[in-house]
Amino acid sequence: MTDAELMAEALVEARRSLAQGGLPIGAVLADAAGKIVARGHNLRVQEGDPTAHGETVCLRNAGRRRDWSALTMATTLSPCVMCTGTILLYRIPRVIVGENESFLGEEELLRSRGVEVVVLDDADCRALMAGFIAGSPDLWDEDIGR
Amino acid sequence: MTDAELMAEALVEARRSLAQGGLPIGAVLADAAGKIVARGHNLRVQEGDPTAHGETVCLRNAGRRRDWSALTMATTLSPCVMCTGTILLYRIPRVIVGENESFLGEEELLRSRGVEVVVLDDADCRALMAGFIAGSPDLWDEDIGR
Repeated sequence: MTDAELMAEALVEARRSLAQGGLPIGAVLADAAGKIVARGHNLRVQEGDPTAHGETVCLRNAGRRRDWSALTMATTLSPCVMCTGTILLYRIPRVIVGENESFLGEEELLRSRGVEVVVLDDADCRALMAGFIAGSPDLWDEDIGR
Repeated sequence: MTDAELMAEALVEARRSLAQGGLPIGAVLADAAGKIVARGHNLRVQEGDPTAHGETVCLRNAGRRRDWSALTMATTLSPCVMCTGTILLYRIPRVIVGENESFLGEEELLRSRGVEVVVLDDADCRALMAGFIAGSPDLWDEDIGR
C-alpha cells in the first residue's frame, strides 16, 4: 500500500471509533512491503482507558514482535507526547501523519530522534477532527490532558 | 504515605509481576494527601501487550479523571520514553523513581518539561531489577525495544 492508501485505512479506523461514540483518531502499522500488520483506534471513551489513544492502541494490537524497525505507522492526527514516546520506545522509523492543524503533536521530538515524519495534510482527516472538536470540546480536552 | 512508603507499594506491584512470570516493574499513583488512587505493574509478558509497562498500566488503571495535576507517581524503575510521554500527556507534576542504575530512562525530558523527578536509589529496587536482567536478558531487551 502507498502512504495515501495506508492513511485511508487509518481513516476507516477513526470513523469506526466515531461510530462507537469515541474520538475519531485511527492508526495502522505496515511492514516494509506496505502490508498492514496492525490497526487500532482511540478507545479512551469506549473502554475508560486514558492510555488508549489510536496510535498506542495500534501498537498494542501489534503484539510482541521484534520487527518494529521495519514498520511504518500511519495516523490520522499528529501524535501526542504519549504516542510519540511509544513510537520512540519501539524505534519505529517512519510516521505518516494525516494532519497537524487540529492538533500539533510532538513531530519535532520524533524528528530529533531520527524518525521520518511525513505530514499529508489530508482534507478528510482535517474535516473529521475539526467536526469532532467543535461538537465535543470537553471530550477532546480530556483526551490531550487539558 | 511518604515517598518511601509509596515506593514500598510500587515494589509490591513489581514483585507481583515477577511472580506472574513478568517483568518486575511496578508503579502507584497517589493524590495530594498521599493516598494511593491507582496501582499497576508491567503486563507485557502476561498479556502480550507491548505497551503494558508498569507506569502506563498504572495510568490506565487510574481511569478517566481530571485531577492528574494533583497526583504523584512512584515507579520502581526510571521511566522509559513511552511512560515518560504518558506522564507528560497528563501533566503529572511529580515522579518518584526507585532506581536508575539498571536503566536510565527519560528523566531529563521529564525535568525539561517541568516535572519534579526524585530518585530514591533504593537498594531493593536495584537488586530486584539487576537479578531479573541477569536471568532474562532477552525479555529485558524486548521490553525496552532493543
